[in-house]
This record gives sequence, C-alpha cells and structure tokens, in this order.
Amino acid sequence: MNHLYEETLNSELKYDGLILKVCHDTVRLEDNSVAGRDVVLHSGGVGVLPVTDDGNVILVKQFRYPQREVVLEIPAGKLEPGENPLECGKRELAEETGYFSHKIRELGMIFPTPAFCSEIIHIFLAEKIKSLPRRQGLDKDEFLDVIEMPFEEALRQVVAGEIKDAKTQIALLKAKLIL
Amino acid sequence: MNHLYEETLNSELKYDGLILKVCHDTVRLEDNSVAGRDVVLHSGGVGVLPVTDDGNVILVKQFRYPQREVVLEIPAGKLEPGENPLECGKRELAEETGYFSHKIRELGMIFPTPAFCSEIIHIFLAEKIKSLPRRQGLDKDEFLDVIEMPFEEALRQVVAGEIKDAKTQIALLKAKLIL
Repeated sequence: MNHLYEETLNSELKYDGLILKVCHDTVRLEDNSVAGRDVVLHSGGVGVLPVTDDGNVILVKQFRYPQREVVLEIPAGKLEPGENPLECGKRELAEETGYFSHKIRELGMIFPTPAFCSEIIHIFLAEKIKSLPRRQGLDKDEFLDVIEMPFEEALRQVVAGEIKDAKTQIALLKAKLIL
Repeated sequence: MNHLYEETLNSELKYDGLILKVCHDTVRLEDNSVAGRDVVLHSGGVGVLPVTDDGNVILVKQFRYPQREVVLEIPAGKLEPGENPLECGKRELAEETGYFSHKIRELGMIFPTPAFCSEIIHIFLAEKIKSLPRRQGLDKDEFLDVIEMPFEEALRQVVAGEIKDAKTQIALLKAKLIL
C-alpha cells in the first residue's frame, strides 16, 4: 500500500438528504489494518466577495440553523451538478444581493472540513459591481439581509473574531493581500 | 416569529457515526412556512499553528479520505466532550508533532460550514516550541508526516492555492497580521 493512502474496501450509504449524502466507508490503511470512515458527500459551493468602487464590501446575514445563530457571510451558494463555479458565483451574487460584477477573479478554493466532508468551496473577488434592475431572487426557504460596510471594518471583525464563517474570513484576508 | 430565526419543529436522528451524527430537522421559518434542514452534528475541533524560533512552521501531511488526496494542514484534532480547547490544542500538538509550546495564544474560532454542520474549530498560534523527549503519539488509525518550512513559503502556498485546508489558510493569514 502507498504511504498515507487509504483504499476503499466498502461504502455504505447511510443518509440521502436534501443537500448532502452520508456514507460509512471501510478503508485499508498503509499498514494493511482496516478502519471506518464517516464521509459527508456535498456537491461543493461558491462564495463571492463583492467590493464596491467606494471600498465597501457587500455581505449577507442569515440564520445558520446548525449553529443556531445569525451569521455574517459573503454571498454564497451550492454548486448545481456540472455547474461552472464562476457562473454559479455570478448567479448567487445576483440572487442574494441583486448585484452584477464587471470584474470577477478567483481567490482560490478551500476544503472547509477535509476530515469528514468532500465539499470544496471556490472563492471569487467581485469588483466593478452594479445593482441589477430587479433586486434579489431568493429560494423559497431562504431569508437574508444584505449588509454594506467598509472593507477595513469587515477585516477588523475577522481579526476580532466577530466574523466566524471560514470562507468569509479567507475571502477578506486574501483580498487584503491584493487590493 | 423573529426575523431570520428558524424554530425547530422536529428532529430525527438519521445516522450515528464514528465522529459525527446526522439529523433531518423540520423548522418553521419567519413567514411561518415549514422547511427541512440537514444537520451534521460534530463535537468541534482545535488547530494549532506552531512557529519555530527560526520562523519556520510545523505542518502535517495526511491522506484526507473524503477528498481522496494528501492534504497539508496545521496540527489539529477533535475536541473530546467537555475538553478545554487550549488543552486539546496542546495535546494534539504533542501527539501529532512531538512539540510543546511555551507561548500559545488564540487566533480566534471558525465555523467551517455553518450551512449544514455545527462544528466550531478553535485556532491557536504556538511560539517558543521545543521538541518533547518522546515524539508523536498518534491514534491507531492515524498516519501523517511532519513537515517544516519557512512561514513565508507556507503563506505563498496559501496565496497560490496549494494549501487548500480552510483552518490552515486562516491560521497562516491571521498569523501574518500579528507576527
């Protein structure tokens, strides 16, 4: 067996949910011993940090049920199967904030929780943004508030621990290095 | 109903795994409509960025089964029920790398995936580190390599997209602001 590698011996679907599937897999480790692995399968997502010409960022506030609190985040959403991440980012930006960007670039991708979940989130920086004629087009079960604040204030909230969402922290910290 | 808030109407345990539980909950939204929520319950974790007196960082490389690749990360581990995050960080640092820190401070906490998972990761910066007499004490099913590299090289790998793990990106980007 290759060093570090884990070979799948068996995979059992345990839950087929609304936005994720959960499997219990059995794997062979590099010393030929056998172990169990919980695996959450997720189709991945996209997050977009929109920055106005005035140097403000557009964030969204929504209730995140697993944390039981209102969380401040960059606009983001789930990739549809086969969807291009950039197109997904533009769609989510329009749906959640009503903005369109004329200059959008990659800030890289992240593994939010590689220990147990397959999710990958692609992060983009959106500049030269303008308001679309028709604001927001949220999903039926989606409620959120759009918040505009100075970039430096958002960064202060990251450093102070007030912005807790991982993709939002990374988007702001990485954008700081290039803006 | 309060603005944005979601009230639990029902919670059904769907999977009770090795390191997580999965529930399907039914919630009441602010407009009194009803929706379903997938919720992954996780006890939380701790990550520690160790920096040597020479300005190198100590990272670990391990196969992350859900991503099917070897991932470079800060030393990290799961919180035991009731465990203090700082004590957990010291324990994981010793177990995974064989180091002890004489100066450890908080870099804040993160919600890696607030959309569907309750996990919180506490991040620490560990300086004045020294090697313990007995190196590493890994779990039975845990294999990893310890890697030492200059802080600036690790930061370059974050910006270049080579370091993909979210907590590791955040630890390095935040440490850059204060070191």
